[in-house]
Amino acid sequence: MAPDDQPAPPLRRRGARMRSAVLAATVDVLAEHGLAGTTVGAVARAAGVHETSVYRGWRTRENLILEALAEQLDAAVPLPDTGRVRDDLVTYFGALARLLATPQGEALLRLSAERDDTLPDHRLAYWSDRLDRGAVMVARAVERGELPPDTDPGLVIEALAGPLFTRALISGAPLDATLAPRLVDLVLGGASAPKPGA
Amino acid sequence: MAPDDQPAPPLRRRGARMRSAVLAATVDVLAEHGLAGTTVGAVARAAGVHETSVYRGWRTRENLILEALAEQLDAAVPLPDTGRVRDDLVTYFGALARLLATPQGEALLRLSAERDDTLPDHRLAYWSDRLDRGAVMVARAVERGELPPDTDPGLVIEALAGPLFTRALISGAPLDATLAPRLVDLVLGGASAPKPGA
Repeated sequence: MAPDDQPAPPLRRRGARMRSAVLAATVDVLAEHGLAGTTVGAVARAAGVHETSVYRGWRTRENLILEALAEQLDAAVPLPDTGRVRDDLVTYFGALARLLATPQGEALLRLSAERDDTLPDHRLAYWSDRLDRGAVMVARAVERGELPPDTDPGLVIEALAGPLFTRALISGAPLDATLAPRLVDLVLGGASAPKPGA
Repeated sequence: MAPDDQPAPPLRRRGARMRSAVLAATVDVLAEHGLAGTTVGAVARAAGVHETSVYRGWRTRENLILEALAEQLDAAVPLPDTGRVRDDLVTYFGALARLLATPQGEALLRLSAERDDTLPDHRLAYWSDRLDRGAVMVARAVERGELPPDTDPGLVIEALAGPLFTRALISGAPLDATLAPRLVDLVLGGASAPKPGA
């Protein structure tokens, strides 16, 4: 690298660029070293910034981890709005399955399931909030008349998210590409009904 | 306690009685002290037996923990066979929800989700095996003609178990008595169909 090509020294990386660099480094350190190994020092070294900059931006290690978790998941799993509930759900849960199949995704979910007295309330709120957001896709379908008015959007989302989380955390079954569409068809159509394509 | 009322001394408790006492003590120690605190010494003290008896019966701490986990869950959540799939599933997943709402149940599930290089393969097999067993209820309904022949029994069980595990491990939402019947009606009937009672 030519001398004039060098990146700005750590302390000069301010604002949005430093924020992205630190959050990306946090995700990497989490995936590689787990919750216990994700110290402000390790993140600062991985991001090429000074520890004091991290403390200035996030104040605590817990805030930093939570914000990194939120950014990573929200960017990887955007909320679609295609106008058809099946398409929305297959897209959304397909993206979630792909995320959970990566080492980073599994580490982030595992972090959320770990008990750690410094974090629990924030993490519970984080996932409740994400499940609520997913429920918006189902609520929109009810508004459009695509699903009956007595549909419980939160329960539909839990029946779709639960099996993905269970495969990642507990059973170890594969998070393959067919899983999300099969689950969506089951939960929308019901096990008692003949399958649309059958 | 009168002197002649005393239990037999530890070394005299043999066979089935010692086995039950040790497994029950293992569950209690796990629930109270977690995986790291569940040593053979702690279990032996809680059960009132000698450590050598535990090693003689189980050889390793891992074998002991896995057998205790299996016994506890299988006894608390028996597999019903009422002849009606809705009744079977509501009974089974209602019992699972009640178990997971107890500190012991949550601790046992949490143990299964923890990464610990001494245990992982056994635990993956344990849960895969339990999910397979649950699938028998759905497979019987297919044989009876109560569900269509192209039903995927394992997927139905995952859609019902996943939300319970997720509430216990991740979202912290309550495992109340209405959850299992609402989930079973959703997964059997499908979100797209008008509800039977609506």
